Amino acid sequence: MSDAYLGFANSPIGSRIAAALGLPQPQPLERFAPGQPVIRGTVLLGGTATSELLTALAGIFHSIGAQTLAHRGLPQWTATANAAGLMTGRWGVEDQPGEKLKALVFDASGLDDSSQSDALYQFFHDTARSVLSCGRVVVLGRPPEACANPRKATAQRALEGLTRALAKELKRAIAVQLVYVAEGAEGHLESTLRFLLSPRSAYVSGQVVRVGGASQPAAALDWNQPLAGKKILVTGASRGIGTAIAEVMARDGAQVICLDVPQAQDALLEVATRLGGKALALDIGAAEAPQALVDAALADGGWDVVVHNAGITRDKTIANMKPHLWQAVVNVNLSTQERINEALVASGALKPGARIVCVSSISGIAGNMGQTNYALSKAGVIGMVQSTAPHLAARGITINAVAPGFIETQMTAAVPFAIREAGRRMNSMGQGGQPVDVAETIAWFASPASGGLNGNVVRVCGQSLLGA
Amino acid sequence: MSDAYLGFANSPIGSRIAAALGLPQPQPLERFAPGQPVIRGTVLLGGTATSELLTALAGIFHSIGAQTLAHRGLPQWTATANAAGLMTGRWGVEDQPGEKLKALVFDASGLDDSSQSDALYQFFHDTARSVLSCGRVVVLGRPPEACANPRKATAQRALEGLTRALAKELKRAIAVQLVYVAEGAEGHLESTLRFLLSPRSAYVSGQVVRVGGASQPAAALDWNQPLAGKKILVTGASRGIGTAIAEVMARDGAQVICLDVPQAQDALLEVATRLGGKALALDIGAAEAPQALVDAALADGGWDVVVHNAGITRDKTIANMKPHLWQAVVNVNLSTQERINEALVASGALKPGARIVCVSSISGIAGNMGQTNYALSKAGVIGMVQSTAPHLAARGITINAVAPGFIETQMTAAVPFAIREAGRRMNSMGQGGQPVDVAETIAWFASPASGGLNGNVVRVCGQSLLGA
Repeated sequence: MSDAYLGFANSPIGSRIAAALGLPQPQPLERFAPGQPVIRGTVLLGGTATSELLTALAGIFHSIGAQTLAHRGLPQWTATANAAGLMTGRWGVEDQPGEKLKALVFDASGLDDSSQSDALYQFFHDTARSVLSCGRVVVLGRPPEACANPRKATAQRALEGLTRALAKELKRAIAVQLVYVAEGAEGHLESTLRFLLSPRSAYVSGQVVRVGGASQPAAALDWNQPLAGKKILVTGASRGIGTAIAEVMARDGAQVICLDVPQAQDALLEVATRLGGKALALDIGAAEAPQALVDAALADGGWDVVVHNAGITRDKTIANMKPHLWQAVVNVNLSTQERINEALVASGALKPGARIVCVSSISGIAGNMGQTNYALSKAGVIGMVQSTAPHLAARGITINAVAPGFIETQMTAAVPFAIREAGRRMNSMGQGGQPVDVAETIAWFASPASGGLNGNVVRVCGQSLLGA
Repeated sequence: MSDAYLGFANSPIGSRIAAALGLPQPQPLERFAPGQPVIRGTVLLGGTATSELLTALAGIFHSIGAQTLAHRGLPQWTATANAAGLMTGRWGVEDQPGEKLKALVFDASGLDDSSQSDALYQFFHDTARSVLSCGRVVVLGRPPEACANPRKATAQRALEGLTRALAKELKRAIAVQLVYVAEGAEGHLESTLRFLLSPRSAYVSGQVVRVGGASQPAAALDWNQPLAGKKILVTGASRGIGTAIAEVMARDGAQVICLDVPQAQDALLEVATRLGGKALALDIGAAEAPQALVDAALADGGWDVVVHNAGITRDKTIANMKPHLWQAVVNVNLSTQERINEALVASGALKPGARIVCVSSISGIAGNMGQTNYALSKAGVIGMVQSTAPHLAARGITINAVAPGFIETQMTAAVPFAIREAGRRMNSMGQGGQPVDVAETIAWFASPASGGLNGNVVRVCGQSLLGA
């Protein structure tokens, strides 16, 4: 649960020893606490003459209350920002850098051709050394698959390589993301930008997010209590990541229905009571679980959010694996979730605008030795999210998934030292994530303001080196 | 260029030392030599009662001349194989394994629901220990994005997790792939199955390939000289991977037009002369290159294949990078290739049924420190392939890309020892690939029989751990 090395490397003496020996020097991550502003520091805006999202961005930064500046490549930001009632100015004088920056936002939506990529170079060349620790970088583009011609699609797709390389290069716990905003979806960008610019996204880096059109316009929201009044089911809530999810949901205003297997009832009751929620002791792998959940939801007057956090591992090489270990993992991690979603949707037990959030895994993306069952189930979760998203959109429901990397839990604390250390360090943050990092990401998907997110799979892995 | 450790670990004493110390024990990869059969050993077929590809598979194995057996989960294989004139039988008796196997092929196309995944477990549980070194495993499915309902799409997408996990688990240089065959595209599967079952795919593992409908039916072919009579441009042909591509193309019957920059003319002439091809000294990054290539192609009576192998690196962190280094990399690796493709297609300089093969990189997928320019360009190559594929299909032209991992070349030989060793070992093969491995993969895309491959990006990386 604790990363002793992180403390050592950031102690006065330890940091000198680590530097002298060339050891990793992971930076403690800033995390969100209630009452904090979205971003503490200045945001620099960059882009091209043809940037298409500036008006939307000005409105969002006004709503956030952020201090922004314009890079020399985006002089038109000043006028756009002023029109939105936002104080702003130019960053730097002549070719000299200006003040240190907490975030960089580059609007690449107007990039029509790879030969225009110099604008990206100029912006990041000028600013790379000016980003503060735990800073944030967001590149905005248009989804390549929807671009009008191959040249534009190619340029937009190229942004992904830049983003992932920058995320590996900037270090110092600076997170870098790419957000593809569909044309017409500008009004749904705010929840995503608030998440990615804030410490809530501490352990999310090198990710690609797609914001699309939603079935309803984004509703006005109390951003301090975005889940106020929402009824949210969290499975596997009695410990670890599940408990963290329930805590974050409750913090953000939700009434949480905490579910776990009957064997975990004591811990479950403790969590539910502490959070002012309900406890629901139920084995989701049982055949009758979908109907039981429908009944519980309808008795509650319907649920707003379902978080499929519960999952199990039963690791063995396939040659050594018993059939029931295969079946249990595939059933609990995937098949039962398909049945539960179908039952909840068909019965109307999910309210209009409901959110389903699933949990995949790097194992489901990259595969893992000894986890054929787990990897199949977690790749299937991605399939479920991608294939059901269009169907659910027709009902105003969204479905997305997080894919955690190395998260510090009781489970990972039991991993042998060398493997644990490798998992902790082999990512751009040089450390494992905390359960709250997964929970914050799920809360972002769960927000009523996140109607533009549907079918996304976002890793919470500090940009782990592992992948496919 | 040489991996001394691979030799050591496979020497009589070295193998004992490596085992005793727990060092990696990479297996020498079998590679293709002219005259060899596609596969030397028995192929075991598995599947479900609803497998949809068996007739196509029987025809292909008959064409290959392979010895096949049926797993107990696929008793209907015997009748299907017999109907195609293929000798076959059952593998094993009762629950006991039968003879050792060179390849496993599982037809999962009929998998409609994740709850049916037990069939996969049973097949791979029974057989995992019976696969010979350098064996081959191919799982066949239907493309999730085209499945009739979310349940089927989910089950089919789940195959990817299984495949990647198996590829990490089986070791001993056994390669595991997933092939999604679109409905109606069964007639275009043979070139892919021949490639993936043969030693030509030595360093390809953990990949997902999509075989779609082609604009024309697959033509009859001399499989020993699949590129006979074809005129093929290979850029960057004077050394390394480019030379290997030219050699494999010539071996397979092509007339190769070897292109490189004027400074490399001597080496280029040597390669072209040795292979009975032509030399073309030209800087593809120059503004006039597209027209010069159109002229050369038209003077040749048109080209059948273009291989965009030429690429450059100019590594620096973006803060330290000069603008011309950014521009040179993006231009040579991406922008000029867009212009060349457009010019060749628009002018009719590419023959009907032409193939364009591009070279991306793991850097373009995962990003890499110090390679913002390179990663952007190589991600852009993926964008170019994906966005132009539908347009080119209308003209009967295909475009695909390979993404090499750690390949043993003069370039990687110059990498510092520790980084080189990490790159070599951090993959499921425990070694770097050879230039010929990239070349064979390109030759597969270039084949007249590969009309069903369009828009694919396949890594040649021994299933590197690195990814996104």
